[in-house]
Amino acid sequence: MTSENTVQRRADLWTLDPAVTFLNHGSFGACPRAVIAHQRALQDELEREPVLFLARKLEARIDAARERTARLVGAKPEDLVFVRNATEGVNAVLRSLDLSSGDELLTTDHAYNACKNALHYVADRVGAKVVVASVPFPIDDAATVVERVLAAVTDRTKLALIDHVTSPTGIVLPVPELVAALRARGVETLVDGAHAPGMLELDLDALGAAWYTGNAHKWLCAPKGAAILHCRRDKQASLRPTVISHGANDPRAHRSRFWLEFDWGGTFDPTAVLTVPFAIDWMESLAPGGLREVRTHNHLLALEARQILCDRLGVTAPAPASMLGSLATVCLPPARGESAEKAGALPFDPLQEALFERFSIEVPVFVFGAEKLRCVRVAAQWYNHRAQYERLADALESLLAR
Amino acid sequence: MTSENTVQRRADLWTLDPAVTFLNHGSFGACPRAVIAHQRALQDELEREPVLFLARKLEARIDAARERTARLVGAKPEDLVFVRNATEGVNAVLRSLDLSSGDELLTTDHAYNACKNALHYVADRVGAKVVVASVPFPIDDAATVVERVLAAVTDRTKLALIDHVTSPTGIVLPVPELVAALRARGVETLVDGAHAPGMLELDLDALGAAWYTGNAHKWLCAPKGAAILHCRRDKQASLRPTVISHGANDPRAHRSRFWLEFDWGGTFDPTAVLTVPFAIDWMESLAPGGLREVRTHNHLLALEARQILCDRLGVTAPAPASMLGSLATVCLPPARGESAEKAGALPFDPLQEALFERFSIEVPVFVFGAEKLRCVRVAAQWYNHRAQYERLADALESLLAR
Repeated sequence: MTSENTVQRRADLWTLDPAVTFLNHGSFGACPRAVIAHQRALQDELEREPVLFLARKLEARIDAARERTARLVGAKPEDLVFVRNATEGVNAVLRSLDLSSGDELLTTDHAYNACKNALHYVADRVGAKVVVASVPFPIDDAATVVERVLAAVTDRTKLALIDHVTSPTGIVLPVPELVAALRARGVETLVDGAHAPGMLELDLDALGAAWYTGNAHKWLCAPKGAAILHCRRDKQASLRPTVISHGANDPRAHRSRFWLEFDWGGTFDPTAVLTVPFAIDWMESLAPGGLREVRTHNHLLALEARQILCDRLGVTAPAPASMLGSLATVCLPPARGESAEKAGALPFDPLQEALFERFSIEVPVFVFGAEKLRCVRVAAQWYNHRAQYERLADALESLLAR
Repeated sequence: MTSENTVQRRADLWTLDPAVTFLNHGSFGACPRAVIAHQRALQDELEREPVLFLARKLEARIDAARERTARLVGAKPEDLVFVRNATEGVNAVLRSLDLSSGDELLTTDHAYNACKNALHYVADRVGAKVVVASVPFPIDDAATVVERVLAAVTDRTKLALIDHVTSPTGIVLPVPELVAALRARGVETLVDGAHAPGMLELDLDALGAAWYTGNAHKWLCAPKGAAILHCRRDKQASLRPTVISHGANDPRAHRSRFWLEFDWGGTFDPTAVLTVPFAIDWMESLAPGGLREVRTHNHLLALEARQILCDRLGVTAPAPASMLGSLATVCLPPARGESAEKAGALPFDPLQEALFERFSIEVPVFVFGAEKLRCVRVAAQWYNHRAQYERLADALESLLAR
């Protein structure tokens, strides 16, 4: 049991509104006070002499940020660039593919809506096809995911877009097994690891995926505007950024075109990217066991949160604990009346609105899949604690009983 | 003559290093103290409740920023979106074109290198051709530009990419005449107005270009990460952002897909964009005559700076005053020795390095065109003053005499 002092001390490291029970670190992350301060010091330096910062010093600083970040995710700096967010990373890869009519792009029905849209965009341009493997939810084991994905592979499959941690259902897919099995069938994988850095231990070199992208602003708590895109060496020549800029004809031979193109897509504020090393070190400093201990803490707290919700709502957990990181999705029992009729309404489910408006609880509620399961997804970051999930359970009990 | 008190008071509005003679507002702009503070207050609010800010409130705030910005540039909000920078705007347009082998994309030899790269990228993918109209420099009058561009039009010309203010040569091209004349020949124009907002009076509705993009971080002094992309109504359905995200299948009918797609390209820090209205109002507040007076001040100061340099270096002005905004490029007299041999070296001309290292003057020096003219380009923003250009003239005299 975490003491009240500890709870308060941890919450104070962030600037989150104490009046809100914030259980949605998953959507946009939340940036700690110290990380924001670090970014602002860099921005002060930038605005003191913009040309010195952006034209003379930036490359070396991006290289340093790349080196520290590569170390965290088990990658070589040569294979790593920064992008604005994982959606941009996915777009860069998909828009660089050389596709033909009839080619197939494979994904699952747990994929992120924005990335499915990107798949359809590049497929529609040339008459290629998006194939969606159905992965059950609730789910019993990770092996099912591999079976379902492999069953959807054909000899026209050009790429598989696989989430490392699914966004709606919050489960960790067996990415090492999937990448290896797909590669054995001649299919390259783009891993959408939007939620992975900071939530899961990564060893991108060992993973061997052709492409891997992930956000730094979520579970590494970097400022918004920082994400990674990892590309296996043999795929770098064909990978181009979403914005073509000076890097395309930069004559310098000692930097790869991969770096030159992704490092600069026109004037931007690079301080979010340059703050990633500080954010990593800061997360490492939170506990004696470093980021590993933080990850374990968050995972256990997510499991605890799920148990509280399942017990109080009388539902069963929709996935084994081994498939969870620091997100947990729970399927809600049937509701009655107006709330049930408008379930899944856009932009917000009425239950999500009621939780926010009446209980000041920020948590996503949505409808998933063909069975239209109504779900709530909680997140567990270092600043969260057990009593917050009990508050959510109270509120859900009250709202669903009406 | 601006008094020393005024000079100091104006400089204090920015956070630029007083030890540096900063004559390169053109490359990345410079953000005033008050504008930075405004952005940070928004960022504080964002990090207090990221979901409230990004998911619940952002659209209405982007709409408000769009409305204020549209008013400044003579546009309807319906036709305006924000992008990260003008290079991204150019890429969105070019990557959305439906090109065929043999099609021609027309531009001039004063176009920005990054955008030329984007032209070549989209042309090379389908076997289209980039046609470069040669515009003389030094140049006598704006009519020459229209002649040269029109002479390069063929029946395969699909688009003309025209700079409003050229980057290397700092001249204002006759964009209204070009857009009208090209349109009369069935050619749509993409105007790269990277330097235009805040430097030139804009009336994008009246201009009638199919596409117009421009930075807010340069002459409007907004934070880095804010630019506009204007699209004529009949071209909006075919214009897609560089990053495909949720907007592509957003079912809401009361917002255009143009807005939905460009307003959200995955998680980002939108505070630069949301600060644009404050930056505009702040610029308007600088002088009794508002931004118009600031523009006139900057234009006259650029002319004065050019005269100082021409007089002291014994060269003639390479363009009529009517073709200048608040940038002025001067062609340098021939140098001797090592400096001359390494003229135009990348990333920096040795003369630019010497100006910075030995005189703490930040100003771009580069080589332009087939005749390899070595040029210096000065900028004139509200915080600049006459003595700074005299310092540059002194330093150039000293460096070029060696």
